[in-house]
Amino acid sequence: MIRRDFLKTTLLGTAALVGGSSFHALAAPQPPARPGGTPLKGPIFNQDDSEFFSVRPPSEMTGEAVDAWVDSLAAAGVGTLMSCVCAARADYASRAWEPRWLGYDPQGPDDQPVLAHLPKDSIKATRRWIESEKALADAGINFHERAFARCKKRGIGAWASIRMNDLHDCNLPDSPLLSTFYKDQRDRGLIRVPYRLSGWPERALDWGRQDVRDYTMKLVREVLSFRGIEGLELDWMRFGWHFRIGRELEGGEILTEWIGQVRRLCNEAAAREGHPVRLGCRVPSNPETARLLGMDGVQWARKGLVDLLVPTPFWATCEFNMPIREWKRLLEGTKCALAGGLEIRYQPWPGANATAMTPELAVGAAMAVLAGGADHVYLFNYFAKGHLDNLWSHEGFNHTLAAMRGIEALNPLPRRHAITYRDIVAPGEPSGHLLPAAPGLGIFRLQTGPKPNGRKVQLLLELEADGEREPAAPNVRVNATPCPDPERQGKCVLLYTVPPEALTDGQTVVETTNAGSRIVRVELAIAAA
Amino acid sequence: MIRRDFLKTTLLGTAALVGGSSFHALAAPQPPARPGGTPLKGPIFNQDDSEFFSVRPPSEMTGEAVDAWVDSLAAAGVGTLMSCVCAARADYASRAWEPRWLGYDPQGPDDQPVLAHLPKDSIKATRRWIESEKALADAGINFHERAFARCKKRGIGAWASIRMNDLHDCNLPDSPLLSTFYKDQRDRGLIRVPYRLSGWPERALDWGRQDVRDYTMKLVREVLSFRGIEGLELDWMRFGWHFRIGRELEGGEILTEWIGQVRRLCNEAAAREGHPVRLGCRVPSNPETARLLGMDGVQWARKGLVDLLVPTPFWATCEFNMPIREWKRLLEGTKCALAGGLEIRYQPWPGANATAMTPELAVGAAMAVLAGGADHVYLFNYFAKGHLDNLWSHEGFNHTLAAMRGIEALNPLPRRHAITYRDIVAPGEPSGHLLPAAPGLGIFRLQTGPKPNGRKVQLLLELEADGEREPAAPNVRVNATPCPDPERQGKCVLLYTVPPEALTDGQTVVETTNAGSRIVRVELAIAAA
Repeated sequence: MIRRDFLKTTLLGTAALVGGSSFHALAAPQPPARPGGTPLKGPIFNQDDSEFFSVRPPSEMTGEAVDAWVDSLAAAGVGTLMSCVCAARADYASRAWEPRWLGYDPQGPDDQPVLAHLPKDSIKATRRWIESEKALADAGINFHERAFARCKKRGIGAWASIRMNDLHDCNLPDSPLLSTFYKDQRDRGLIRVPYRLSGWPERALDWGRQDVRDYTMKLVREVLSFRGIEGLELDWMRFGWHFRIGRELEGGEILTEWIGQVRRLCNEAAAREGHPVRLGCRVPSNPETARLLGMDGVQWARKGLVDLLVPTPFWATCEFNMPIREWKRLLEGTKCALAGGLEIRYQPWPGANATAMTPELAVGAAMAVLAGGADHVYLFNYFAKGHLDNLWSHEGFNHTLAAMRGIEALNPLPRRHAITYRDIVAPGEPSGHLLPAAPGLGIFRLQTGPKPNGRKVQLLLELEADGEREPAAPNVRVNATPCPDPERQGKCVLLYTVPPEALTDGQTVVETTNAGSRIVRVELAIAAA
Repeated sequence: MIRRDFLKTTLLGTAALVGGSSFHALAAPQPPARPGGTPLKGPIFNQDDSEFFSVRPPSEMTGEAVDAWVDSLAAAGVGTLMSCVCAARADYASRAWEPRWLGYDPQGPDDQPVLAHLPKDSIKATRRWIESEKALADAGINFHERAFARCKKRGIGAWASIRMNDLHDCNLPDSPLLSTFYKDQRDRGLIRVPYRLSGWPERALDWGRQDVRDYTMKLVREVLSFRGIEGLELDWMRFGWHFRIGRELEGGEILTEWIGQVRRLCNEAAAREGHPVRLGCRVPSNPETARLLGMDGVQWARKGLVDLLVPTPFWATCEFNMPIREWKRLLEGTKCALAGGLEIRYQPWPGANATAMTPELAVGAAMAVLAGGADHVYLFNYFAKGHLDNLWSHEGFNHTLAAMRGIEALNPLPRRHAITYRDIVAPGEPSGHLLPAAPGLGIFRLQTGPKPNGRKVQLLLELEADGEREPAAPNVRVNATPCPDPERQGKCVLLYTVPPEALTDGQTVVETTNAGSRIVRVELAIAAA
């Protein structure tokens, strides 16, 4: 399902439908072909199952359009593409799973069965999306295979990504996003939390069930037959809850065994393709949370089952303080690469207004990932057209993504580190968030990367609005060093200059006292070098 | 300083002064002497710097009393003794640090300088404690060396433990617990958070300072000269905050270097003693928190600097859900042993009433440690006389501690797993606690060890009192399985029978809905096998 305002309503992670301004694809130099396949490199870019089709009409569905889109990724310096093949249905002419357009009649009315339950204002966009997918398939083109071939020409790693438990629209009786298999499991009460349908994750498939695993293995086999595939991602974070409550550790053992089977299939595909076919997984941002949810990435890496792990938040907000250093340590001695996942939403605390990540925020989050020791930055829902058009300039998009290839390239850019929270915990695991902070004493820790020697550094605090009153500016210390009185932007936003002697490597701690109202946003802004 | 009610007022971890009932020391079989020194084994027992002296009058200060006390540990099956040598002063006739009795006049009045600032009702006990320490020293006996010799006879590992930053009484102008060095650092504003003296940890010595490190190294050298020493513990959890705010990562590098120096001194002592002199550290319960506080235990282990790490809460409560499995994984490939630390207080949430750990709770916490993969259980503040007299029977004490040697011995005992919280986080690191839980939906995850097949299992919920009203019993599921209606004990305590089909290995998740008031206590009780 396509949502127009991804900041408020979608759990899709698919593209917002925005204007169709043409993409300025710059030609990037082409690296030499390698017999061992494309080496894993960043930034890693997840392309969801809808964006390409949502922002282009069916009439533009040609192989050349796919090529041009891959070229746009090359222009942005993307190192590896994760091309998502599905939500609960496939986005291509699958024989293993139902394709999106099954049961959809392009000539039929807006109240035909697969559309009847959708919000009225989304039906037009949905129809266009489905018709675009169908148009490309009807032209005999598999989006992913076409993209992989172009990726090879442009030196971009070519991976497919499977969403292991996508739940978009799972609360609707029917939708083009829902498979017969899913609806049958749900309607028979075989889902994860059938006794409490409070949200989408409660309606997830139960991966403790053999039929769920077999059903998905069919798709895995088909996707691994794609020509040119260099890697397969199992996206366990769409959505990140796969087992009945209290059965997650048992589930984890089942999943480890199942991933071993996928590993063997990857090896078979590699023999056929003549180069490695790697296996990667997206997992919860915290390694212990991942284990407690049955996604024991550390064990998968240590058993040699996976080549790439991507700790990531779920969706609600980019997580600036992921324990990347700890992941790196846990993976030492394995051959598994580590990438840190960035989401596109920025939400300081649960329930706060969300905005899109700006380039500065994305650079800050990417810096935390790389400075923490990750090998790569991984971008989810970062769509130049689908989400970020009108928000990021095309040049800014390309420039920012390209710099995410490594810490040296990233460091000179202006960046911003923010307090957010982690949006995925295991059931019954405590979670904490620092914001909003009480006016008395607030302490905030940020992962801020290399010490920004000689650069202008400012601390932004936003206070909760309190009618017409201008809340008093708190006293602030950064790494125990007092900051002078701030500038005020409007009533509630305060900018403090951070003295050079306060700066440190790696982490920055902010202390606030005597704020005039609750603190609702904390950001450390480092100017360009 | 001795506090009479450790549950409410002490931050000492020293013994409460309770009645002097005689200890029933059972003779334990004596293992054969080993040329390599006593192997590290559990349970590991921390003896603080006051309990022995507090519960015996000066007239009983003889070498034989020390021997008898060690025999009592042997009777309880203690595997390794950690004999604490100090708070901010030494508890023996040190030449490196000031001994406790320096400046104390046994014939002087209660308002002499070192006593004048103490609570009036603690002066008598304090005098007795100091006089006992002095009496043993005046008899020419070093408590620790005497204990080590007896430990060797009884097959108990003989370690000394140094508190690296003890802060008892640090808010007083003077006390027998405060050293001249400490008072000077404090009074010159060189402590950790001189600008905000809200609690004891803010007044900690700043280990970023060379003079602090040198001052403590003198004590390390002296303690490593003790005859018979088999190991040295650096107790970084009394108290667990050692650096200026925001300078913890820099501090961690300093500490790692410093611990390398101690390691070399241990090796020198080992050459002299003719057997290994091991090095251990107590560190915060979470490995990432430990790193963020400058106590990077994982790095110490990976560099081969330490032989033992003890993740532990600080003091306020035993922590039932320490991430032991994660620690174990981080230490794989090193030669460092892992012990999980149990504290003596049980407090379900910050600010809740605290009680002492019962044998059942201690067995539950120990089971979580061993089932998580730790090599040993470590007990802090578990004093048969000083804390637990009148609370635990002597037989129960011995029986319970002896069973903590391993999971097979522990498993048949009745045990109880409880929801608490973690009481040590880095400044600006979010912390979360599950209790008190709102009446609507509560979810609680417990580390419950091996599946208790065939045993009676009950869930205890305590609801917040609400006047004379009897709050409605919530509906409960354990691992998604509904529990029948509970028995009620009084108005607010509910006992649910857990159906056998709900039981799992490793973790148990409790879900509650529609409680009549907030939930303030959650325990899973497993009957004896």
